Amino acid sequence: MKKLVVDMDGVLADIYEQFLSFEEREFGIRQNREDVVGKTESEAFKNEKKYALTPSFFRNAPLITDSRRVVEKLNKEYDLYIVSAATEFPQSLLEKQEWLNEFFPFITWKQMVFCGSKKLICGDIMIDDHYKNLDYFNGTTLLFTQPHNQLLDEKWHTRVNSWKEIEKMLL
Amino acid sequence: MKKLVVDMDGVLADIYEQFLSFEEREFGIRQNREDVVGKTESEAFKNEKKYALTPSFFRNAPLITDSRRVVEKLNKEYDLYIVSAATEFPQSLLEKQEWLNEFFPFITWKQMVFCGSKKLICGDIMIDDHYKNLDYFNGTTLLFTQPHNQLLDEKWHTRVNSWKEIEKMLL
Repeated sequence: MKKLVVDMDGVLADIYEQFLSFEEREFGIRQNREDVVGKTESEAFKNEKKYALTPSFFRNAPLITDSRRVVEKLNKEYDLYIVSAATEFPQSLLEKQEWLNEFFPFITWKQMVFCGSKKLICGDIMIDDHYKNLDYFNGTTLLFTQPHNQLLDEKWHTRVNSWKEIEKMLL
Repeated sequence: MKKLVVDMDGVLADIYEQFLSFEEREFGIRQNREDVVGKTESEAFKNEKKYALTPSFFRNAPLITDSRRVVEKLNKEYDLYIVSAATEFPQSLLEKQEWLNEFFPFITWKQMVFCGSKKLICGDIMIDDHYKNLDYFNGTTLLFTQPHNQLLDEKWHTRVNSWKEIEKMLL
């Protein structure tokens, strides 16, 4: 079985929705996703770090469309792991595991990796929304579209715009 | 710089001391380390899982002799990561990060990995006390002696008995 490495924030968990709604709660104005296209997350949301350090930020993130359904199918065909950057925000560690347990109950604790950098991670396929993670990976790299990477040239990685596209590609 | 992967429990953190003292607290009798040589941790400590699930079990583990001093030196010469199995006991995630922050303050969040299995981890050198982790590793494997592995044949890995030995070998 091929080793498939799946990122969490921006791939399974809709972290933009959390940023947008935390910001709306703080300032009373809601940006649209189109407004933040081409900006890094810290350019788009000036209190990004504060929100990410807030208890419940990660625990209450909504699911990205089709992620659960497709990951459940992929989990039968691949040696699948969820690899998520988490140690920058230590309170997120337990929240992320609880979130996975709730929305992806077929993913066991043996399939979870919470890290700072992903430089040690090897496998056959990586799905991630950040170049900084894909660039170090030794296998096939799928760039999951999010506003921060939408304008970037994807020549080093294969862009995927939805879980439906991933489903067609990998199943 | 070579990538050096260092395990936590049984390599940096003296988890046997925790098992022995938790057991003593529960039953009033303290086993010696010699009594548990050649036994797996679950054979040696019948309430192993219960102790590992107890808050403070990992947070209060004592340091293994010389680990801090030698890891601080290694950290200057290697691209060093601490990789620890943690997701089986979710409450251990934050405890492990806090423990590292206290005893190894020179290790940043970027150098921490908390996982279930270590099958995705690649690097140049791995120091671990468990065959199950070393066996999957692509680089040089150093088996750190602990009672559970003391009687095992180390023909697949290089046995190291102390951090002083590691210091001589890697520095």
